[in-house]
Amino acid sequence: MDDSYYMGLALGEAKKAYDLGEVPIGAVLVVDQQVVASAHNMREIWHDATAHAEVIAIRAACKALNRWRLTGATLYVTIEPCPMCAGAIVMSRIDRLVYGSPDYKAGAVESLFNVVQNSALNHRLDVTAGVRADECSTLMKDFFRQRRK
Amino acid sequence: MDDSYYMGLALGEAKKAYDLGEVPIGAVLVVDQQVVASAHNMREIWHDATAHAEVIAIRAACKALNRWRLTGATLYVTIEPCPMCAGAIVMSRIDRLVYGSPDYKAGAVESLFNVVQNSALNHRLDVTAGVRADECSTLMKDFFRQRRK
Repeated sequence: MDDSYYMGLALGEAKKAYDLGEVPIGAVLVVDQQVVASAHNMREIWHDATAHAEVIAIRAACKALNRWRLTGATLYVTIEPCPMCAGAIVMSRIDRLVYGSPDYKAGAVESLFNVVQNSALNHRLDVTAGVRADECSTLMKDFFRQRRK
Repeated sequence: MDDSYYMGLALGEAKKAYDLGEVPIGAVLVVDQQVVASAHNMREIWHDATAHAEVIAIRAACKALNRWRLTGATLYVTIEPCPMCAGAIVMSRIDRLVYGSPDYKAGAVESLFNVVQNSALNHRLDVTAGVRADECSTLMKDFFRQRRK
């Protein structure tokens, strides 16, 4: 299983969000090639500002593994994480982040800040960007185009 | 009721964390002078990397008010928020942040980043720092001194 495969699972999660009228972002957390948690954005339905795909996946993974240090984990997410999610990724000590498309308006990995590779913070991680980026960004564009109608 | 009063409640929450062996940080979320949520750090006991005082308070407030936009809210927290918490504060559209002591190692308001007043993000907030700062930082210093023993 490669990055493209797991990003496909994250895209599947993003599509679930799309169908629910939520901003279509999905995330999958993998340890030893096993999917430990899958999630999609649920902010509107849960009335919870913290219910982004990444935060839900991290919380679910902490629960599943019964530890807050997600050492050995790779997080796949369709869109560049926002500051909250990038911070959660650092706080949970995830080893590697793979995302699809950048978020120029709010991204905290390459766009506005780089929260996940700051030498002052006590954890940094490997980042791979651009995996299935077109599919990830197309889903977002379709969603906002549809909503403007 | 003034900032010092509400920070006293946040300090009370921080002391609960201290007694539980959790890093002693507390938060209180206030709307119209009413305390909507109070929380303290629970990362170790809950095995949840996202269980910082601020995130728990924000989630509890979203639940109590049944909305993710915490417009009209002031968040009191004993220590300068980390990137995750500063991001959550922006994401939940809190109006005002009041904190006690800076966190030079991981703070995302004045120390490493300024996540809460970035012109590129779609929400910015008023910040008051230094309220009962000595009490807030003393609690942290005592905790880490005790733990090193």
